[in-house]
Amino acid sequence: MTDSAVLALTRDLINRPSVTPEDEGCQELMGARLAALGFKLETMVFEDTTNLWARRGSEGPLFCFAGHTDVVPPGPLDQWHTPPFEATDIDGYLHGRGAADMKGSLAAMIVATERFIAAHPDHQGSIAFLITSDEEGPFINGTTRVIDTLEARDEKITWCLVGEPSSTSEVGDVVKNGRRGSLTGDLVVKGIQGHVAYPHLADNPVHKAAPALSELANTVWDNGNEFFPPTSFQIANLHAGTGASNVIPGEFKVQFNFRFSTELNEDTIKARVHNVLDAHGLDYHIDWLLNGKPFLTDKGDLVEATVEAIKAVKHQEPALLTTGGTSDGRFIAQTGAQVVELGPVNATIHKLNECVKIADLELLTDMYEGILERLLA
Amino acid sequence: MTDSAVLALTRDLINRPSVTPEDEGCQELMGARLAALGFKLETMVFEDTTNLWARRGSEGPLFCFAGHTDVVPPGPLDQWHTPPFEATDIDGYLHGRGAADMKGSLAAMIVATERFIAAHPDHQGSIAFLITSDEEGPFINGTTRVIDTLEARDEKITWCLVGEPSSTSEVGDVVKNGRRGSLTGDLVVKGIQGHVAYPHLADNPVHKAAPALSELANTVWDNGNEFFPPTSFQIANLHAGTGASNVIPGEFKVQFNFRFSTELNEDTIKARVHNVLDAHGLDYHIDWLLNGKPFLTDKGDLVEATVEAIKAVKHQEPALLTTGGTSDGRFIAQTGAQVVELGPVNATIHKLNECVKIADLELLTDMYEGILERLLA
Repeated sequence: MTDSAVLALTRDLINRPSVTPEDEGCQELMGARLAALGFKLETMVFEDTTNLWARRGSEGPLFCFAGHTDVVPPGPLDQWHTPPFEATDIDGYLHGRGAADMKGSLAAMIVATERFIAAHPDHQGSIAFLITSDEEGPFINGTTRVIDTLEARDEKITWCLVGEPSSTSEVGDVVKNGRRGSLTGDLVVKGIQGHVAYPHLADNPVHKAAPALSELANTVWDNGNEFFPPTSFQIANLHAGTGASNVIPGEFKVQFNFRFSTELNEDTIKARVHNVLDAHGLDYHIDWLLNGKPFLTDKGDLVEATVEAIKAVKHQEPALLTTGGTSDGRFIAQTGAQVVELGPVNATIHKLNECVKIADLELLTDMYEGILERLLA
Repeated sequence: MTDSAVLALTRDLINRPSVTPEDEGCQELMGARLAALGFKLETMVFEDTTNLWARRGSEGPLFCFAGHTDVVPPGPLDQWHTPPFEATDIDGYLHGRGAADMKGSLAAMIVATERFIAAHPDHQGSIAFLITSDEEGPFINGTTRVIDTLEARDEKITWCLVGEPSSTSEVGDVVKNGRRGSLTGDLVVKGIQGHVAYPHLADNPVHKAAPALSELANTVWDNGNEFFPPTSFQIANLHAGTGASNVIPGEFKVQFNFRFSTELNEDTIKARVHNVLDAHGLDYHIDWLLNGKPFLTDKGDLVEATVEAIKAVKHQEPALLTTGGTSDGRFIAQTGAQVVELGPVNATIHKLNECVKIADLELLTDMYEGILERLLA
């Protein structure tokens, strides 16, 4: 049996070992297909990262497919049942690194666009692709730099569909219409080092900080809202001590992370953390890193088109959620664009033996095409 | 000017680089001096450690000088003002690794014994030397093994003077007549690892343990007593996390140490720690290590002789303290012996440019001789 268009392209993309920040020709492959449809291509190279901006049409509104060609490393090869960079069918699933995150989505975007343009060569507005190869890495030279370039020339995305694997049990069961913010704090609590036999000459920063950490861990930061789960505080790393059992440590390092709802912002969180630490009389310093602000695409054209397109294919309504990790959608949403995420089931992403159900690639293509139909036909 | 006997011997000992567990012939040097006085020598080798047991006389009571020939490593040589294994006089101080901890004491013991035997060749009871070369190391094959050997043949020490540097400002200002116990706990609190974006699927052991650690750090374990300061709990080391800011750790390791008075014992401390951890519902495991039980030599022959000998030399009364770290005295005290520690000023021990005041070597020799006079003349 010959591969379908979407399966053939997913296979071609998986066979390119594009571990972050490498692209390994994935964008060239996609670009060739888009150029044949009349897209104007711009390759934007920033440092070690290759990005593709491709646009068909010059009018608004602008619908954009966004995604990434890079994948996370495969991990121990001997624990894969198949070679990670040779797409392999097993019982209706296509196996390989990137199958679900997110080369299947990229293939579905291309094939959906080909079908849509064949049916509607003179569609309204414009269609674009924003493709990066550093989504899994430091996200410094990818989407955020392309967005900066577009902003500088006042090129505005109206609607953006990010192909991240949003689905949990079946393709299309979940659409992400926003994401929580992420704020990391690197806390150093200072004390005075000394010998455990002479505690009056030392000042144990762990002892001083423990009640404060206990309070932070037990704080209800908010109760979330209609769209967001409650803000979550988690201590990810901590360390103190020289390794010797008879030395009182001189400093205590704690790294914590907030995933926060639209009920809070960076400043309110920082102020509340400082209040707790100050109330416990700690001598400390915090380096803060805002990984992303929360964003929300409330009900509107894009959410409606996405929900309707899924219902037409699956005859079921998707859940609209804002849970889970961050994505490049946060950079695009900052421009005022409506952003949703829709992609395959995420059960195997970043794991050994990553795979995607082959039938889901077809369903996803139909959904993407349906969204284009509803917005631009 | 010719070196005095004690200064010359201290110099000879310092010039031997006897970093734990090496002895580098120090015991042979001391043994030759003792053999000349009629001591019977036994060299006891256990694994990598050489120990010397030397005794003059077969009757009780038995007075024993205890000490160690090994020293801690010198650390960065370029930060020493003089070569650490070449004893060097500077402005009335003898510099070199082990000058204060405790080759000066060993030399003072030998010279005091020589003088005492010259004056009292037919002294009462017996005199012994218990010298090890692993006091600064794991203390497995040193004093404790020698004590086991003596116990097995029912050879009992009545009075023991340990030459550890007990003094703080002036030689003889402090006599240690006991030491606190030391108990170390290696705690592992178990949780469930996960992604910070999905806290409901994980169980952060740091969050669960923080209130328990806070309670342990703020507990009053006892109020000490006439001879001991209050029991002290200190967290020495702790660690959790993979290093990634988006991963909730799966376990949390905490190492803590108790320095405890005779008001508590190993079992009562363990029970109280378990009560706190259990009350907080933690899933945990603790490996315990008892480094030493507390011991106390209350007023009696040895303390009285030591105090009087110091007063005769310094015209000042020493403080009797049980503070500070552990010493090999704890192994000897377990046999029922009276044990005190008296040695040079400890300000530079284990540090760069360790040194001892040359005049103090003479004073210490006088004190040691005075103790022998009061107990065995």
